[in-house]
Amino acid sequence: MSEPDLSSTPRTALRRHAERGHADRQALYAVLDAALICHLGVVAAGAPRVLPTAYARVGDTVYLHGSTANASYRAAAGREVCVTVTLLDGLVYARSVFSHSMNYRSAMIFGVARPVTDPPERSAALRAITEHLTPGQWSYARQPTRKELAATSVLALPLTEASVKIRAGGPSDEPEDHAMDVWAGVVPVAVVFGAPQADAALRPGIGVPGHVRRHAS
Amino acid sequence: MSEPDLSSTPRTALRRHAERGHADRQALYAVLDAALICHLGVVAAGAPRVLPTAYARVGDTVYLHGSTANASYRAAAGREVCVTVTLLDGLVYARSVFSHSMNYRSAMIFGVARPVTDPPERSAALRAITEHLTPGQWSYARQPTRKELAATSVLALPLTEASVKIRAGGPSDEPEDHAMDVWAGVVPVAVVFGAPQADAALRPGIGVPGHVRRHAS
Repeated sequence: MSEPDLSSTPRTALRRHAERGHADRQALYAVLDAALICHLGVVAAGAPRVLPTAYARVGDTVYLHGSTANASYRAAAGREVCVTVTLLDGLVYARSVFSHSMNYRSAMIFGVARPVTDPPERSAALRAITEHLTPGQWSYARQPTRKELAATSVLALPLTEASVKIRAGGPSDEPEDHAMDVWAGVVPVAVVFGAPQADAALRPGIGVPGHVRRHAS
Repeated sequence: MSEPDLSSTPRTALRRHAERGHADRQALYAVLDAALICHLGVVAAGAPRVLPTAYARVGDTVYLHGSTANASYRAAAGREVCVTVTLLDGLVYARSVFSHSMNYRSAMIFGVARPVTDPPERSAALRAITEHLTPGQWSYARQPTRKELAATSVLALPLTEASVKIRAGGPSDEPEDHAMDVWAGVVPVAVVFGAPQADAALRPGIGVPGHVRRHAS
């Protein structure tokens, strides 16, 4: 049961730093499953628009959700979009400013965003988006009402045209620069979670559930 | 010397959660100065394309740099772009899944990306991008050669059409949901820096400079 490799199209083929490309599907899954938010790119009135938003992967589909009133979601439905997920892993200090870089894992997905209208698929998508951030939270909190569901736009994007780019490791200085008295290396960057802060209106006696506490650093 | 407020245009006016909008320029500066990377949206062959990239603000201009070989940078030069900067501050747990949210600070800037060709402005822009991540680093490392400069595309985007959106605080549940036995609150999210890791090829005796060590958490 090996999944097909990612297709290479003119817009996913890496022109630069091809060694940073990862054509296998598992690398794509790993990036998508690790990040908290994505950036959704749409074309609205001929111009690009980039919106940070929540998402989740289910198999070979990425689901996004937003308000039906959101201009970017309206511009995305049934149209070409680009979803980019970026995890910043480090600042890379080189001996020359030109060779400075960042360590990162990123995925770009291109395709037509399909509005999800089928109720079971909508429900599964919303569940996946909630569970992506906090497994266990969907069944813990109150489920959406019909009215709440109607106010939510759900979009699906297939993982058919995508690229993954990863940079890791130290700086790549020019050989002649190694003789310089300049420090070179990496400062790691990471996202961390703090201790849960209870809502001021929380009823007494309700503790932080284990599936939420798991985030705490 | 008060700066003008941010203009409100059809694409920067907030239709939803207008209370999260911040029309003052200082709020825009604060978001742009706090983040490490932005997401650049362009239209290439009629479709959107979203690229994570480095940037810096100088006064009322945002500068981006990339390789002259980069397809997104080629598509951006002289064309309408959208630069979005997002700082994720927390996961907001509500009593209902519908009221779940995230705390964040984000800025969206629209406009035509001007290719920067004037050598002093190019140099100042590259310096600002390096210094944005690590003040002091530009003059510490080797300056770019003419050849390195020629391989770098620098774009400028004026801060004339922009919006800032900030969400902070606890969940906004429906009043009737407050009676539920469900924990509600916020799990803070933050970006942290790890201890500097020296390049394996670093010559002995070169310590981490103070302006880099300042990142260490």
